[in-house]
Amino acid sequence: MRTVDLILKKRNGGELSREELRHLIEGYTSGAIPDYQMSAWAMAVYFRGMTARETAELTLAMAASGDQVDLSSIPGIKVDKHSTGGVGDTTTLIVAPLVAAAGVPVAKMSGRGLGHTGGTIDKLESIPGFGVERSKEDFLRQVREIGLAVVGQSGNMTPADKKLYGLRDVTATVESIPLIASSIMSKKLASGADRIVLDVKTGSGAFMKSLDDSVRLAEAMVAIGTEVGRETVALITSMEEPLSPSIGNALEVQEAIETLRGDGPAELAAVCLELAAHMVLLGERAQSIEEAKALVQGVWESGEALASFRRFIAAQGGDAAVVDRAELLPQAAYRVTVPAPEDGYVQAIDAESLGVTAMLLGAGRATKEDRIDLAVGLKLFKRIGDRVAQGEPLAELYMNRGETAETERLIQRTIDAFTFSAARTEPAKLLHAIVTKDGVTYL
Amino acid sequence: MRTVDLILKKRNGGELSREELRHLIEGYTSGAIPDYQMSAWAMAVYFRGMTARETAELTLAMAASGDQVDLSSIPGIKVDKHSTGGVGDTTTLIVAPLVAAAGVPVAKMSGRGLGHTGGTIDKLESIPGFGVERSKEDFLRQVREIGLAVVGQSGNMTPADKKLYGLRDVTATVESIPLIASSIMSKKLASGADRIVLDVKTGSGAFMKSLDDSVRLAEAMVAIGTEVGRETVALITSMEEPLSPSIGNALEVQEAIETLRGDGPAELAAVCLELAAHMVLLGERAQSIEEAKALVQGVWESGEALASFRRFIAAQGGDAAVVDRAELLPQAAYRVTVPAPEDGYVQAIDAESLGVTAMLLGAGRATKEDRIDLAVGLKLFKRIGDRVAQGEPLAELYMNRGETAETERLIQRTIDAFTFSAARTEPAKLLHAIVTKDGVTYL
Repeated sequence: MRTVDLILKKRNGGELSREELRHLIEGYTSGAIPDYQMSAWAMAVYFRGMTARETAELTLAMAASGDQVDLSSIPGIKVDKHSTGGVGDTTTLIVAPLVAAAGVPVAKMSGRGLGHTGGTIDKLESIPGFGVERSKEDFLRQVREIGLAVVGQSGNMTPADKKLYGLRDVTATVESIPLIASSIMSKKLASGADRIVLDVKTGSGAFMKSLDDSVRLAEAMVAIGTEVGRETVALITSMEEPLSPSIGNALEVQEAIETLRGDGPAELAAVCLELAAHMVLLGERAQSIEEAKALVQGVWESGEALASFRRFIAAQGGDAAVVDRAELLPQAAYRVTVPAPEDGYVQAIDAESLGVTAMLLGAGRATKEDRIDLAVGLKLFKRIGDRVAQGEPLAELYMNRGETAETERLIQRTIDAFTFSAARTEPAKLLHAIVTKDGVTYL
Repeated sequence: MRTVDLILKKRNGGELSREELRHLIEGYTSGAIPDYQMSAWAMAVYFRGMTARETAELTLAMAASGDQVDLSSIPGIKVDKHSTGGVGDTTTLIVAPLVAAAGVPVAKMSGRGLGHTGGTIDKLESIPGFGVERSKEDFLRQVREIGLAVVGQSGNMTPADKKLYGLRDVTATVESIPLIASSIMSKKLASGADRIVLDVKTGSGAFMKSLDDSVRLAEAMVAIGTEVGRETVALITSMEEPLSPSIGNALEVQEAIETLRGDGPAELAAVCLELAAHMVLLGERAQSIEEAKALVQGVWESGEALASFRRFIAAQGGDAAVVDRAELLPQAAYRVTVPAPEDGYVQAIDAESLGVTAMLLGAGRATKEDRIDLAVGLKLFKRIGDRVAQGEPLAELYMNRGETAETERLIQRTIDAFTFSAARTEPAKLLHAIVTKDGVTYL
């Protein structure tokens, strides 16, 4: 099989077979196929697309390129959740204990974040003593015993995806739906879940800015799951503004705890309920989505979900007292209030810009080597649709550096992220659509 | 300037500027831009194309990537000729002395062939003593003195094109009109000619199989010439069958001499007359194409062109006696006649297949390291439209190896290259169109 012939076939609009895609991915992973052929193929895929069958085969080949986790020793249907990413996306910390308390085992391997704030395991590390490195045996045993574990990725998972993603990044071939879908799904397949709930973010703060693109990406991922026998459901949720008011690692943990206790922001709670209910339904702990929602609400209100979160923290060596005493989490040295510059209604909030502000405060990594400051970040007091009076607090910065000039700059950045309108504005819609193997339902 | 942004711009259908194309070509030539970015860009060009301005800038950047020949010390307008290649394409050996005899200086640098037969300088080396390596000074002096020199390429000409062509070959990005056009024209610009006549072959034996594609390639090259101020005219000529009956190095030299003497095949002579006349017109030795043709026919019939060829051979150290005594050229040990397998009319001749037969006989190179056997090749006795009787000679093989099995195989290959019809067939059209800066004229 000549690699150039496979590039030619794709360039001319053909569909590559399982064997041809394996040749490409195995050859690329081993180094037998050079970057310059892979980038030409990726550009041809950008223009020609891939069929559902082809995308699924590519995904399977990438999942098989490295270690694959075997969760079969855990009884029950393992359901994983994945978010395509955004700013102030605290859902995993809330959804995981909700689902575990409802009886669906959650065995999650998570990466460290590169970007605005840390990833889920960075956030968890803001809990004193919490350990994210566990042997495979300990990881599986913990899930069997308490129904929930979240650990860092270890070993050599989906090396083909890592290599291909790095190449796409420098060859203008990132924005291809089948390549994005197979990249995400290959990691989900390798991490061993039986079924998958996807949280596909849409809007100005998301990777996919338009609802159409978000739905197309969701459909591509659901199609992959269907093709490979891992039922997948995708919710299209809003990233027109940060989902949660807290942006920063310890701040998000604190907000997750408050939400599990029932004191969290209504919007965050609503999205978590949807995600958790779909996981419970896929995990066959309920017969309908209504029943699943009732089950989730039951463990939420009864405190069982919060109890699951406590057990989870303790099992991974963390201080479960943080659940009752937020001051045990890392605290920033300064808090600076950001005042509203004018009277009006919030019309838009630039989530990406606020994410960059959080990173500038030290909450995220610009490069893999950067160290995160777990205490810093920002809290928003206003959402789209809210009325504000000039001088009223818009947000609060949590800082560990106190230089006046930088502080002024960050205050201005935060103000600039808001757009105001003299006329009344509508709150942003939270949930746009649900995509299953049977099609798209717009909400 | 980030290379990935240039790939993105092209991917999204944008037009790259002069500075952007220079960044790409200079960076690629120096090694600062890696193959994997260049191949992604080439694939994006395959899908998006390039504007005339962009193609011209790319061509100039590639011409400037290495040595450029300065022909300004030669008085007059220097006109170069280039053929896009085919089988039995002996035109340069005939056209160059015709044009030189008509007063247009010909200063040609030519590459060695890779493929069916050798290139022009390989063919010339079949003349005993003929030298193709000359210093730049000797090359220019020879053109000033006798109006004609053909030497091998020396130095480091268009390294960007060499590197890019090699990359395109293994990344399925060869078939892009602007990339093909800029590759050819960059070499023409670097070799210093003021004006250029292109012989764009079309048909089953050519790189461009369809007339439409051939015209598009010709238009792209003429547009480049126009953009950069080097007037360019393209003739679209037939490669439905080999242009000349001789395929092989010494065989083609012999046929060129016969044609210059007036004893050559009518089809070859007709195409050479057209090419030479257009060169004479561009060289401003005539006011109209009719006048140019009359001038060329004059030096042809008077023997001045043949005398020019003699002077040219002698000036490069060759034995000019070959002009009168063909037996001084390398001779093959065996001649084997290929008989017609049936009665009928020749409907098609597979030029590529006959080219491969010539290469199998030893007339061409499969790899750069192969040595050419200058004596071997084949001669065809029939053209499309000719009537044949079973057993009548179709062709003759000139061989230096006599193994029976191989001979049988090559005879069969030659027969298989012919398609016969019981019904009368029409001769193939020789000249399809002329493309100038003013447009296409179909003939």
